[in-house]
Amino acid sequence: MKSGDQSSNINRRTVVAALALLPALSEALRSLPAMAQTASDAPLASWNDGSAKQAILDFVRAATDRASPKFIPPEDRIATFDQDGTLWVEHPIYSQVVYCLDRVPAVVEKDPKLKDVEPFKTVLSGDREAIAKLSLHDLEKILFATLTGMSVEDFEAEAKKWLTTAKDHRWRRPYTELVYQPMLEVMQYLRANGFKTYIVTGGGQDFVRVYSQQVYGVPPEQVVGTAAGTKYGYHKDGKPFLTKEPKLLLNDNDAGKPEGIHLMIGRRPYAAFGNSDGDRQMLEYTGAGDGARLMMLVLHDDAKREYAYGPAQGLPDTKVGTFPQELFNEAKKAGWTVISMKNDWKRIFKFE
Amino acid sequence: MKSGDQSSNINRRTVVAALALLPALSEALRSLPAMAQTASDAPLASWNDGSAKQAILDFVRAATDRASPKFIPPEDRIATFDQDGTLWVEHPIYSQVVYCLDRVPAVVEKDPKLKDVEPFKTVLSGDREAIAKLSLHDLEKILFATLTGMSVEDFEAEAKKWLTTAKDHRWRRPYTELVYQPMLEVMQYLRANGFKTYIVTGGGQDFVRVYSQQVYGVPPEQVVGTAAGTKYGYHKDGKPFLTKEPKLLLNDNDAGKPEGIHLMIGRRPYAAFGNSDGDRQMLEYTGAGDGARLMMLVLHDDAKREYAYGPAQGLPDTKVGTFPQELFNEAKKAGWTVISMKNDWKRIFKFE
Repeated sequence: MKSGDQSSNINRRTVVAALALLPALSEALRSLPAMAQTASDAPLASWNDGSAKQAILDFVRAATDRASPKFIPPEDRIATFDQDGTLWVEHPIYSQVVYCLDRVPAVVEKDPKLKDVEPFKTVLSGDREAIAKLSLHDLEKILFATLTGMSVEDFEAEAKKWLTTAKDHRWRRPYTELVYQPMLEVMQYLRANGFKTYIVTGGGQDFVRVYSQQVYGVPPEQVVGTAAGTKYGYHKDGKPFLTKEPKLLLNDNDAGKPEGIHLMIGRRPYAAFGNSDGDRQMLEYTGAGDGARLMMLVLHDDAKREYAYGPAQGLPDTKVGTFPQELFNEAKKAGWTVISMKNDWKRIFKFE
Repeated sequence: MKSGDQSSNINRRTVVAALALLPALSEALRSLPAMAQTASDAPLASWNDGSAKQAILDFVRAATDRASPKFIPPEDRIATFDQDGTLWVEHPIYSQVVYCLDRVPAVVEKDPKLKDVEPFKTVLSGDREAIAKLSLHDLEKILFATLTGMSVEDFEAEAKKWLTTAKDHRWRRPYTELVYQPMLEVMQYLRANGFKTYIVTGGGQDFVRVYSQQVYGVPPEQVVGTAAGTKYGYHKDGKPFLTKEPKLLLNDNDAGKPEGIHLMIGRRPYAAFGNSDGDRQMLEYTGAGDGARLMMLVLHDDAKREYAYGPAQGLPDTKVGTFPQELFNEAKKAGWTVISMKNDWKRIFKFE
């Protein structure tokens, strides 16, 4: 370490000398993270002015102002984001379900007797109407068959490959491009103000971790999701590996979201973002603490640029990402902010 | 946000001007984290020169040198530390077990019929020999009775109170002072070189999270431990809360350590530290990846300054933190480093 120590000492002297020459500099340096945000662009550039954008700005101001009674110590700044329908498109069906359906032929190839067994037979038929009618129980069978039984490395490689090749039917783009630009800006703005951003998704934890860093700037360890167990074992050469097991450890939906947050993060978030009934408890839990708080729900009311579904506010009903009127009423009562995609967002995607 | 924006712009101009004046500065600033380590003291000040200290220095050099074939990208730098016997004293019995035994009177007060039920009756008797003979099954009953059934906030408050008042019998100090100074220096040194340090403990995740930041500089979300589930519910006033449930989600020992690492971190560590058979799989898993690797085991061979137990290398046998000869042999074969507390550490505790 000798050469390393020497170069550190030289650099140290340079820094110390420089700081002595420029008393204003150390103060200025402390503002660097906030500056990084304002330097490139105004924060939340894809948001229209309005109560939703204002709620985010007000929250960050209260959270970061030491004189504010709602100030949040930097080390406590945690924000959690649902993924499907909050950060990226979830209609007509969750992207991970498309992945699982696309994996069925490979699973059947390995285990040919499944060819004549439901629900695999229906999936192989390619009959999209019949596939859309599969029961929840059938879907679970498909998820377990396609997401477990392989090493974690094999799963990661398969998912990564699919993500770079598969395309959404409407926009004809990779699913990872169908992320909401305004929400990416919220994540960046919060991080620039000292928040640790987490994804808390009903989707598969291992699946989302494959692309979370690249797509959202969120490292794998900051993804909390529905998780199955793994099993430690050894290859013939003695090298250890983990196999994904069909054993559910955490169903990260509804009450499972605050429970998962406690398990994986261990403390209450100060900000939480969702879009459906499955996020209700996460927002309630987030809102039940002291200090500055921000709870937001994305309402899909833009059939032209994305999709329109509720059934809150008279929007069409759906089974995928349901936002019932009761949730809308609870939001109003509790002071949560409902984001109108149509009115609050200048644009939906980066590629627009 | 107007006033904030203005002050950021002023600071930005100051910085830009300063950087233009001092071309050497930005290069120097990039070395700040490493400098922070060398400025205060040489790294690993409580370590004697020898193969153990050298293994740590060599690992960090290879991991951080971009020219090294074993270079680890900064965002991938993960290091995991067992706690009991690796970071703090575990003899004569794990500190958390003392906590649970100390909690028994309060549990019995709430549920008086337990007074005449084993194993609570034995614990209340105060007969230390009889308590030491309790079976694993009895201990489990005590753990569940004292660690579950309350809100996560109540548990945290109780544990915090105990930690500030309870004292170890030998040193007459709070348990949180019985941490190994040389290991704290390893954690600091790794963090100064861009590593995220995790605790991966067989102890209770919620228990260790209470003091991990203060004692180890490790935030709650970087503690992986044996974890029970929680249950989301509402107080009468509608305020939500989580109750700790007697339902084991993760037994973070043995194979449970790599499994827990995958669940909570989602990627393989590059460095792992342990001291007993329960850490074997974590070290194997860590060693099975590419790039720079460091696997270390603390051997308790210092009866004078701490405790001596193995039974590896002819040390006395123990049920608490067993280090069998097979583990010692595996370490030698796999190129792991065994740390001799007696020979490798100048001092054990900060208070020495």
